Amino acid sequence: MALIIQKYGGTSVADAERVKEVAKRVLRYKKEGHDVIVVVSAPAGTTDSLIKRAYEISDTPNKRELDMLLTSGEQISIASLAIAVEALGGKAVSLNAFQVKFKTTEDHTKAEILDIDTELIEEKLSEGNVVVFAGFQGITENNDITTLGRGGSDTTAVALGAALNADEVEIYTDVDGVYTADPRVVKSPKKLEFISYQEMLELAVSGAKVLHPRSVEIAARYGINIHLRSSFDDPTGTIVTDEKKGENSMEKVKIVGVTSSKNEGKITLMGVPDKPGIAAKVFSTLAKSKINTDIILQSSSINKEFNNISFTVKTEDFKEALNVSEKLKDELGAQGVIHEEKIAKVSVIGIGLKTHYETTAEIFDTLAENGINIDMISCSEINVSCIIKEDDIEKAVKALHQKFIEV
Amino acid sequence: MALIIQKYGGTSVADAERVKEVAKRVLRYKKEGHDVIVVVSAPAGTTDSLIKRAYEISDTPNKRELDMLLTSGEQISIASLAIAVEALGGKAVSLNAFQVKFKTTEDHTKAEILDIDTELIEEKLSEGNVVVFAGFQGITENNDITTLGRGGSDTTAVALGAALNADEVEIYTDVDGVYTADPRVVKSPKKLEFISYQEMLELAVSGAKVLHPRSVEIAARYGINIHLRSSFDDPTGTIVTDEKKGENSMEKVKIVGVTSSKNEGKITLMGVPDKPGIAAKVFSTLAKSKINTDIILQSSSINKEFNNISFTVKTEDFKEALNVSEKLKDELGAQGVIHEEKIAKVSVIGIGLKTHYETTAEIFDTLAENGINIDMISCSEINVSCIIKEDDIEKAVKALHQKFIEV
Repeated sequence: MALIIQKYGGTSVADAERVKEVAKRVLRYKKEGHDVIVVVSAPAGTTDSLIKRAYEISDTPNKRELDMLLTSGEQISIASLAIAVEALGGKAVSLNAFQVKFKTTEDHTKAEILDIDTELIEEKLSEGNVVVFAGFQGITENNDITTLGRGGSDTTAVALGAALNADEVEIYTDVDGVYTADPRVVKSPKKLEFISYQEMLELAVSGAKVLHPRSVEIAARYGINIHLRSSFDDPTGTIVTDEKKGENSMEKVKIVGVTSSKNEGKITLMGVPDKPGIAAKVFSTLAKSKINTDIILQSSSINKEFNNISFTVKTEDFKEALNVSEKLKDELGAQGVIHEEKIAKVSVIGIGLKTHYETTAEIFDTLAENGINIDMISCSEINVSCIIKEDDIEKAVKALHQKFIEV
Repeated sequence: MALIIQKYGGTSVADAERVKEVAKRVLRYKKEGHDVIVVVSAPAGTTDSLIKRAYEISDTPNKRELDMLLTSGEQISIASLAIAVEALGGKAVSLNAFQVKFKTTEDHTKAEILDIDTELIEEKLSEGNVVVFAGFQGITENNDITTLGRGGSDTTAVALGAALNADEVEIYTDVDGVYTADPRVVKSPKKLEFISYQEMLELAVSGAKVLHPRSVEIAARYGINIHLRSSFDDPTGTIVTDEKKGENSMEKVKIVGVTSSKNEGKITLMGVPDKPGIAAKVFSTLAKSKINTDIILQSSSINKEFNNISFTVKTEDFKEALNVSEKLKDELGAQGVIHEEKIAKVSVIGIGLKTHYETTAEIFDTLAENGINIDMISCSEINVSCIIKEDDIEKAVKALHQKFIEV
C-alpha cells in the first residue's frame, strides 16, 4: 500500500463528465489498496473568467481580494470531485486551505508555502477517505486567503507529497510527458523517459508550460519523484527525479530540450552612473515589488562613466516593472528608460552543457546561420538562453532542435 | 454615525456593472459617516448552475460537499464588491464565514446559526473598512463549511445586525417593498409602509419570496428593524418592525396580504392505528430528517380505530419525506401511503384575523363562491391557509385580494 498524490489540471475537471472520469481513475487506485490524495485546479476557463471579471471592475484590483476571488474556482472542483467519488460508491472528503491550515507567506497572488498541518488529512485518510484538496490556495497566519501564482496547483501537490512523505506524486495534464520541444513548433520531438530536477526547472522557467517551477524546486529539495502523465490515456509519462536515478537514460541525451517563451518584455535603464551598489539597488527594488527578473545584462559606456542595465520580465509584471524603473531612473540619476514590450526567448537545456563548452558556440552559430540576431544572452550550467525578435522564434526553435536533438 | 448592514441579492451583483453600482451606494453611506457592513449573495444564476452541476454528477450529492460547492458563489461576490469599493477610492475588506468564525450547527444545506464572533468585523470597521461579508454560509465547530438554505443571506444579514447591535438592516431586492399580493397575479396590489414581524413571517412562510423566514424570526427575537427596499431606485420600501412601532399604519390594514405557493406536496399515511403518541412519532421522525412539515391534518375513521395523517412539505423535501413515510408505514402498521406531488396553497395574512373570527368564514365563502374546493385548512392567529388544486390558485388569490384588500 502506497500513498499516492494525484494532481489534475483544469481541463480534467472542466465539466461533469470529465469529473466523473477522474473519479473513476482515483477509485481504481483506491481499490488497489493505496491511499489517495487528489489535488485539483479550478475548472478550465474559470480562473480566466474570474480574472476578466476583476479587471472589468478595476484596472488594479486589490491583490488580497483577487486571491479571495480566484480561490472560489478550486472550491468548485474539490466539491464536484468528492461528489463524483461518492456517486461511484467511494468515500471522499474535500478540504480547502483553511481547513488543512496550509500556511503561506502574505504575498498575495504569489505566496510561498510556509507550513502544512498534515493532521486532518491523515485523519481523513485513515477513515478510508479519498482526500480531495484545493490546489493553488493557502492561508496566512491571519487567516487571509492567498494563492501560489498561476499553475500553483503543481506546487500544492508536490508540497503535500513532501509533507506527507508520499510514495509518488502524479501530475496529470493534457500532454503525456516532457518533450524535447513544443510539438506545435517542431514536427517530431522526442518524449523523455526521465529528466533531472535541474533540467526540468530550466525547461519550466524557459517557457515550457509543463510544470510550475516551484513544484520542481520543492521536489528536488525533498527528493520527491514527480510522474508527469496524460489524463486522457494511460501510458507512462516522464519521471522527474534526481540525476542519478535516471542516469542511464540521461547519458544518451546531451540536450533535453529546446523551449521558447513569448510572454516577456525588456526594460533598459540608460546611462546609470557607474557607482558601486547601483545594480544591487535596481534589483533589490524590483525584488521588493515581487518582480522576478529573468535575463540581466549590464553594459558599460566607452568612458566607463555610465552603464546601461537591461533586464527581461514576464509580461504580467511588465507594467509594474516599468513603473518601478521610472522611479529608479529619478532616484539614481539615470538618463532614461527604454522598453520593448514584446520580446522572445529561445533556450537550449541539457546537463551536457556544463561539460561541453563548445556547444554554446554551436548554438550561436546555428542562430547566425539562420539569419537570427541575438539581442541578449544568458548562460547557466545547463541553460543557454537568447533573446531574439519575436518573428524569429519558430525558426530558431526548429533550427536548434534539428541541430542538437534530431541528429 | 450609525452602523448599517446592507444585504444585496444575486441580481444586484450579477455582473461587473451591477457590482460597481452597489459599491457607489455603499460609499455614499460611508461618506455620510456611517459604518457599513455589506452582506452579498452569489451572482444571479451562479447557485443554480452549481446545483445543476452537482446533479449532473450525482442524483444524491453529499450534502457536506454540496455546501462546499455552493459557497464558492458568495466568495466571488464578496471579492468583486471589495475590489469595486477600492476602485472608487474606498477601503474595503471581504470576509467569509471561516474568517469571522460564523458558527452554525452541522445540518448541511440547512444549518442554523449558533454564534458569531464579532471581533474581526469590529476591528476591520474601526480601521475604516467597508466590511463585505459572505451571506448564506457558516462553519461548524470542526471547520466544515455549511449553508443556511436558499435565501439564507437575509438571515446572515439580520443575525449580524443582532450580534453587532446594528442601527438598521437594509435588504435590497428587485422589488421595493412588501405588497398585499404578487403583482404578477393581482393587478394593483398595495405597498405596505410597515408590517409586523409576525405578519411578515406568515407572508414569508406562505410563499411570498420577499424575505427568508428565519431572518424575520431573528429580527423579532432581537428587535431589529428590517428595511426592505429596491436596489434599482431609491424610494423607501417597507419596514418590518414590531407591532407597536407601526401601529398607526397597521390599524388601517386588517389584512396585509394574500399569498400563494405552488412548491408543495402532500403525503397521507392511511389507516394508522389510533394509539397515543403515534402523531408525535410521525412528526419527530420527519423532524429528525430535517423535514419541515407545513400543514398537518389528522382525521379519524368512523369507528375511531384508525386515523389518516396528512401533511404538506416543500417540493425539495418531498422525495425524502416520502421515503421516511414508507418506513413509518411499516413501523406503525399503517395501511398505506398516498401522495400528491403538486398541490397549491393560498394564504390570507393579517393581525386582524385574531380578533375578527368572522373573517375566516368569509375566506371560505369567497373560495366557495368561486367554485374552488378546499382540501386542507390551517388557521393560526394571523394566517388562514387553504390547500387547493394547483389550477385554481390564481383565481383564488385574485378573489381573496378583491374581497379583503381592494375594498
